[in-house]
Amino acid sequence: MMPVVSSGSDSTKTLRKAVILLSGGLDSYTVAALARRQGFELYALTIKYGQLHIQELEAARRVAHVLDVNEHLELDVDMASIGGSALTGEMPIPKDRSLDKTEIPATYVPARNTVFLALALGWAEVLHVCDLFIGVNALDYSGYPDCRPEYIKAFEHLAALATKAGTEGTAFHVHTPLIKLTKAEIVKCGIEMGLDYGLTHSCYDPGPNGRPCGHCDSCRLRARGFDVAGVFDPLITRLD
Amino acid sequence: MMPVVSSGSDSTKTLRKAVILLSGGLDSYTVAALARRQGFELYALTIKYGQLHIQELEAARRVAHVLDVNEHLELDVDMASIGGSALTGEMPIPKDRSLDKTEIPATYVPARNTVFLALALGWAEVLHVCDLFIGVNALDYSGYPDCRPEYIKAFEHLAALATKAGTEGTAFHVHTPLIKLTKAEIVKCGIEMGLDYGLTHSCYDPGPNGRPCGHCDSCRLRARGFDVAGVFDPLITRLD
Repeated sequence: MMPVVSSGSDSTKTLRKAVILLSGGLDSYTVAALARRQGFELYALTIKYGQLHIQELEAARRVAHVLDVNEHLELDVDMASIGGSALTGEMPIPKDRSLDKTEIPATYVPARNTVFLALALGWAEVLHVCDLFIGVNALDYSGYPDCRPEYIKAFEHLAALATKAGTEGTAFHVHTPLIKLTKAEIVKCGIEMGLDYGLTHSCYDPGPNGRPCGHCDSCRLRARGFDVAGVFDPLITRLD
Repeated sequence: MMPVVSSGSDSTKTLRKAVILLSGGLDSYTVAALARRQGFELYALTIKYGQLHIQELEAARRVAHVLDVNEHLELDVDMASIGGSALTGEMPIPKDRSLDKTEIPATYVPARNTVFLALALGWAEVLHVCDLFIGVNALDYSGYPDCRPEYIKAFEHLAALATKAGTEGTAFHVHTPLIKLTKAEIVKCGIEMGLDYGLTHSCYDPGPNGRPCGHCDSCRLRARGFDVAGVFDPLITRLD
């Protein structure tokens, strides 16, 4: 039976590994740093799913490097062939959308977090890890259904039934430390930890030089977060 | 809102599409044929996940052809990099194992059906489909946890929370018509429908000429199924 690892005990230190879904964006960088601060050894998982803003993969590598992760695994999964999303090229990226709209935008990728968490679960089981971290956020976000607490809870229930480890008593825990924070609170949290957000990439539709468009949801949520936090975004400062 | 499609009504005929996970094995072929008999238009999904018995992909293409599916999508997902399974080369394929053993064998692929169902769910949402079919079987099987009814039920619950369609009221149904059948019953069912099981591939460790090894779990469960059903396996008959 896989040991169910508790946090906070020195005696279990060698067992305290966690799988972190690391996109290369602001949120997943913050989550990874929080996990490390909690004492976890980091196993970072980055998924190449056919996203057009491939610049985030380089950001994920930069972030993995500065966080000194134990392992950084990049996995390919062909979600572009499924289609249905602006992020994989099915339709244009929406620009200058009201961030207060409740409708789910075209950047939604059908079943993306379920695919991502399933792959993270598989790797976690191989590593004998029961802690997964994901940077979902249900406050300053684009309304994606697979970012909500009830979804995460349902995935944890599924994980126990889906796996050999689960049948042996392992309880998988999907940590979502950002789920109830505003983007400004996330930025403040990261700044307090000394994170360099200039390493990250958020834009869904960057220019050929990698420069953020400034108009997609992701750019605008990020800008609002830095603005409300009263902090300059080093990514923008550095480019100017 | 995506229409929740009921079966058996001519008025909804054009909406009756289903996504079928099609491996190229005996079970998924039978499931696909059953779905077609129920009046569904078939959208077959085959996953290349790094399985060494790549011959099953050709079988999936043969089966998709004879079933005249509306579309056959082959997707790549790199589960070999995750490892942890004999099927992706991490360890040898177990041979001549007692089929009555309750332990989960080395051919278990961590989180495989969760990854597969997540991809099927994504495609289903893009196609405006709420019916998924999978050939899992919890009787004559290798004890994989992600083949049990409670797992399927948990996935249906997750699917409603994971998707835009779910938030709009769509109830996804994962059909598992074989889940409580013995392998012999599955074989009889397929023979009654006129299926040519010579098109399928089951072996986990085929020879260079594609010939089944006869000793892996999959070969032995298949052989026992045909034996109990009192039917010759056309795959073997044809090779002899």
